Amino acid sequence: MYCKCGREGFYLRRHSGEILCKRCFTRSIEKTVFKTIRRERLFEPNDRIMIALSGGKDSLTLLYILSKCKYEIFAVTIDEGVSGYREEGISISKSITEKLGIKHYIFTFKEFYGYSLEELYNLALSKGIDLLGCTFCGILRRRLLNSAAIKLGATKVATGHNLDDEAQTVFINLMRGDVSRLMRLGTKPPRHREGFVPRVKPLRYIPEKEIAIYAHLMGFPLYERECPYVRASLRDEVRDLLNQIENRHPGTKFAMVRAADKLSQLLEDRIGEIKYCIKCSSPSSKEVCRACQVLMMLGINFY
Amino acid sequence: MYCKCGREGFYLRRHSGEILCKRCFTRSIEKTVFKTIRRERLFEPNDRIMIALSGGKDSLTLLYILSKCKYEIFAVTIDEGVSGYREEGISISKSITEKLGIKHYIFTFKEFYGYSLEELYNLALSKGIDLLGCTFCGILRRRLLNSAAIKLGATKVATGHNLDDEAQTVFINLMRGDVSRLMRLGTKPPRHREGFVPRVKPLRYIPEKEIAIYAHLMGFPLYERECPYVRASLRDEVRDLLNQIENRHPGTKFAMVRAADKLSQLLEDRIGEIKYCIKCSSPSSKEVCRACQVLMMLGINFY
Repeated sequence: MYCKCGREGFYLRRHSGEILCKRCFTRSIEKTVFKTIRRERLFEPNDRIMIALSGGKDSLTLLYILSKCKYEIFAVTIDEGVSGYREEGISISKSITEKLGIKHYIFTFKEFYGYSLEELYNLALSKGIDLLGCTFCGILRRRLLNSAAIKLGATKVATGHNLDDEAQTVFINLMRGDVSRLMRLGTKPPRHREGFVPRVKPLRYIPEKEIAIYAHLMGFPLYERECPYVRASLRDEVRDLLNQIENRHPGTKFAMVRAADKLSQLLEDRIGEIKYCIKCSSPSSKEVCRACQVLMMLGINFY
Repeated sequence: MYCKCGREGFYLRRHSGEILCKRCFTRSIEKTVFKTIRRERLFEPNDRIMIALSGGKDSLTLLYILSKCKYEIFAVTIDEGVSGYREEGISISKSITEKLGIKHYIFTFKEFYGYSLEELYNLALSKGIDLLGCTFCGILRRRLLNSAAIKLGATKVATGHNLDDEAQTVFINLMRGDVSRLMRLGTKPPRHREGFVPRVKPLRYIPEKEIAIYAHLMGFPLYERECPYVRASLRDEVRDLLNQIENRHPGTKFAMVRAADKLSQLLEDRIGEIKYCIKCSSPSSKEVCRACQVLMMLGINFY
């Protein structure tokens, strides 16, 4: 089986039926990212783009592909403070940003919140509070990313969310009946608002599997450790389920994400007035944003 | 475990945590149907309601519950012409409508289309066309139901679709990225239009399992045969998948259907102008409706 360029086939893209050689495969990934950026107008010429860099395959791929463009970019790694786990991601992130000549900053939970993730877990345990694994950590990570972006003068934050992540989110929102979150999931970056730097997801249409292959072909170091705080989650279940469906019906994840896009376009003007958290002034759908809710629950007086 | 009325518990409704005795269970089913009719304004006082009665548990339940109301109702059974299968449904339908004193009519594919389902399949085979099992038959059944409704002066057609059917449809539309179908799935009956009798689904919020139990408690005869033309379908896969999810997360099917309702409410005014089939004048999203497409494909000159 041969690629349409004549070289030996290397990858069969099941949802389109294409056979691709290594070269055409990597090009097609990069082209998809560039097309997403252009079509969805993710960036403007004067944007100063902060890349959320964990050191995993997705964010490395994002960093590498964006480094080929003429945008002004820099990278930020969040160190939650989980010993034996995050060090690996930090060292990968350091070495790749050095190689590419991209500025790299590290922000820690400890410095920002006064507690590392480990300490937050112990604090919660001592109060008999059951923190919801990755959800809770994600909330605090996003808050810190936003603060870092403001501090460093970024106008956009780019994250490495891939097609699988997005399809999972679509399905989770649907199974929770959470229409307003479903609506806000579109590609278009939200308007810049006081105190909130818009987040964009240039890898949103690339399947996780193809990012893994791209990362392997590019020789990116593999982030092998798993966070010890990871727990079985609804997202894991939904991941398995969507993989089952995708296997039998290639293209399903893509169709789901596109459906969410169409819905958010159709409903763009129906999204209610944005409120701001009364504690921290972050944009929030609730009176108190989720990050402040978590911090209040733990008795951390952040402000 | 006891029901809140003091009687012995018989059913645990997992998504709400209620324990119900037989009496409270059957009442709760009926109340849900009445509430759906009222809240969604499915019927108006002068409606003449035609019930699509296959003889299966869903349509029997629908008929029985609607027979307790003061609406003017009658029943129609479609005989596709599948020997050894449909006879059972027809005899069940006849005996229950007789018992309840409800008028009952039978319409056949043979008389309406000139071919029974069996003959249509053979015709397709001889032309090398692969008819898509239940999809194709459903399209022709709906067309005939609409014609029967017009002929008999019905102002609404009520079908026995349950919560499981609806959640499956939501998910299938999503996995196909078919936003316009997703939007049109709401409960509100579509406006009455020339040549089209609105269809409503009063059992839309009742899980299939609960309908099966209700039908059993009411002593409805069980329709045991399966149509020999049934083929493994996407819907079967989706059924399994949603049952897996519902088992682990009770209430998911309900949340999905409610999400679709909210979307269709939000998007009510975004649904494009209805077109009419150029062949048969039925309302259709395409130039030629699906029923006419199928008939044309088979070379049947229907008009």
